[in-house]
Amino acid sequence: MAKKKTIYLDYAASVSPNPSSIHALGVEARKKLEGARKEVTDVLGARKDEIIFTSSGTESNNLAIQGIICAEEWQTFFRSSVPGVPIPARPFKKLAILPHIVTTNIEHPSVLQTYKLLKKRKLVEISIVPVEKNGIVDPKKIKKEIKNNTVLVSVMYANNEIGTIQPIKEIAREIRHWKKTRAVSFPFPLLHTDAVQAVNYLDLNVEKLGVDLLSLSGSKIEGAGRVGVLYKKKSVKLSPIFGGGDQEMGLRPGTENLSEIIKFSKALKLAQDTREKEAKRISLLRDYFLASLLSSFRVLDTRKLSGVQHPEINGDLQNRLPNNLNVTFPNIPSDLLVIELSERGIMASAKSACQSGESGGSYVIKAICKKPDGELGGLRFSLGRQTTKKDIDYTVKSLSEILQKLKKWYD
Amino acid sequence: MAKKKTIYLDYAASVSPNPSSIHALGVEARKKLEGARKEVTDVLGARKDEIIFTSSGTESNNLAIQGIICAEEWQTFFRSSVPGVPIPARPFKKLAILPHIVTTNIEHPSVLQTYKLLKKRKLVEISIVPVEKNGIVDPKKIKKEIKNNTVLVSVMYANNEIGTIQPIKEIAREIRHWKKTRAVSFPFPLLHTDAVQAVNYLDLNVEKLGVDLLSLSGSKIEGAGRVGVLYKKKSVKLSPIFGGGDQEMGLRPGTENLSEIIKFSKALKLAQDTREKEAKRISLLRDYFLASLLSSFRVLDTRKLSGVQHPEINGDLQNRLPNNLNVTFPNIPSDLLVIELSERGIMASAKSACQSGESGGSYVIKAICKKPDGELGGLRFSLGRQTTKKDIDYTVKSLSEILQKLKKWYD
Repeated sequence: MAKKKTIYLDYAASVSPNPSSIHALGVEARKKLEGARKEVTDVLGARKDEIIFTSSGTESNNLAIQGIICAEEWQTFFRSSVPGVPIPARPFKKLAILPHIVTTNIEHPSVLQTYKLLKKRKLVEISIVPVEKNGIVDPKKIKKEIKNNTVLVSVMYANNEIGTIQPIKEIAREIRHWKKTRAVSFPFPLLHTDAVQAVNYLDLNVEKLGVDLLSLSGSKIEGAGRVGVLYKKKSVKLSPIFGGGDQEMGLRPGTENLSEIIKFSKALKLAQDTREKEAKRISLLRDYFLASLLSSFRVLDTRKLSGVQHPEINGDLQNRLPNNLNVTFPNIPSDLLVIELSERGIMASAKSACQSGESGGSYVIKAICKKPDGELGGLRFSLGRQTTKKDIDYTVKSLSEILQKLKKWYD
Repeated sequence: MAKKKTIYLDYAASVSPNPSSIHALGVEARKKLEGARKEVTDVLGARKDEIIFTSSGTESNNLAIQGIICAEEWQTFFRSSVPGVPIPARPFKKLAILPHIVTTNIEHPSVLQTYKLLKKRKLVEISIVPVEKNGIVDPKKIKKEIKNNTVLVSVMYANNEIGTIQPIKEIAREIRHWKKTRAVSFPFPLLHTDAVQAVNYLDLNVEKLGVDLLSLSGSKIEGAGRVGVLYKKKSVKLSPIFGGGDQEMGLRPGTENLSEIIKFSKALKLAQDTREKEAKRISLLRDYFLASLLSSFRVLDTRKLSGVQHPEINGDLQNRLPNNLNVTFPNIPSDLLVIELSERGIMASAKSACQSGESGGSYVIKAICKKPDGELGGLRFSLGRQTTKKDIDYTVKSLSEILQKLKKWYD
């Protein structure tokens, strides 16, 4: 037999080996892909055939929501189990009843806009439950909105702007209670959670959470590849968004982005392995930040700068991501503060960066603000693995200078 | 003013700076993104607002096709311009007429399966034009299928399995001729081409090609990032597939995969700058491969191995990507040859790697085969920048050994 060497003549498949190829390098790539998938399943307490790799958190949220609606599995159940609703003929646009979704008013745009897209196409009916003034939704209010035709409840695990943590387990429990009023094994509503912001600090075990669908994104994990993940409980029927090959169990066509998937799985594992320790470190830092900020503001106040009002801390301080601080300064637009801070080398945010260029302030801050300050937005500081106490001191000092400077214009 | 240093407190946006952030690092990221976009526009002869970054070729094809259908712009025109068709009320599912698409039978699965998805949802009507026995479609036959309600003609630039190059310019000309029978400035049908396989060897100038939509993928370009591109002529109205933020002109929500986009734009430019030289080099190598293969097969034949039939070269040899060779050996399943070659360290392909695990041979080979050998598939060799003459010699020698060995079973 000829001597063993490697000659790659499969450039048309992909310039680097592709998990779909049947040759040795393809098989090796497939093994690596499945190894990465295994690592993700271990972190989530899931099974291998429950993990779908996508390109991003946005795609994962879309696949969860569009996938449930377009799979049309709910039709079977609604026909036979909604009392008083006649069994209509296919296609589902002729159904007398539309699928219903329950969500909150502070979900990420990739959730809220997807509902709007589906609603515009007359494919769904939506109930949006407003969160309380602390930025947390009441599980009882979610349950109250569930109807016979509710296919999906979608509530984010932690909010991207104000960091509030939603009571997913309690919502899962309310759904289970509601289901008991239905026939045995009635599968709806399913529970989806967008866990993109939760990934570094919260427990992602899907069993404990009681979710059917969970979205993740590599862009929020230090060292992770730029891919997304959708966890989908085995029993859940999804329809793919894309037409194409049969990668990812036919649910996400397109050659898998192997190198990024491998980076993602390793970084996810590391983030989850160290999350408790890191959560402790970073919450101390964040609390120090908050205390410094408040005491520095009191100093400003004492100097009798006319009209100084106390800053508003947005969102609950207990049930909150340990790395998040979100503040509204009275009369001062938060994006102006971002620009001033940036000039001093400090990179903060005025609202979710996923709404590039969108004007009109933050709908999240509007949803929770007590005063009509919603249009000022919130100044968001989100700390990370590299953040130090020195950084915080410098930031508080800079912010104090900026506020003094801006007082002249915004009094 | 305080001393300038950088403190990143925007981890919730993204662990690395994000083009949507308004702080200095965000602005810098935005500049890099727009620089990469400029580079792509230069290669395509397009304008900056005509380039959309996606995650893959599959996504680009889906965005082109689903985007046109769901944008529903065609409704306006059909209502007013289709003779004899009454103007129905919105929504479009109540329209008496469905949008019509013309395509070929050898498109990539991300095109063909997308049509099937839309057809299943009763959103389109499709005409599939079979290619000729040389694997090339007749532009006249495309024109013949165009009807008053045709919104899109989608023909790939070069085929992924057999490398045949489709006459896109001629198809564009036929469409223009057809349009002359309509009112002035009637925009439909639009012309989409999947140029994923063409990227290394063919001219991608969209003006010269006369296309309205063109898809590219980084996975086929040496050194490119794993992203996709959709070129969309400015006048074309698209609907996004994903709900989410307003990145990529609102047409492709989700934080841009900046580092991969930058790699993509550089690699695309390099591939296009060197394409003529590389096409010449690689076509000589491929022709040498073909000649060696045929002469080696003649040797096998002369040795009077019983029942040896000549191998079939699949697809036109003139209008063909210079790096592609696709052969069917009589009586021998091509995937078996891939596995045998792989054992000797040679990575080839038996059909499009994008249909992982799909059984039943290649629909492309079936579309062009003269004998009922379709289910044998085609053995595809696709050469690349690293391929040398020595690789070819070794491959031909190995293939010859394999064929002699397999004769025992497949006679």
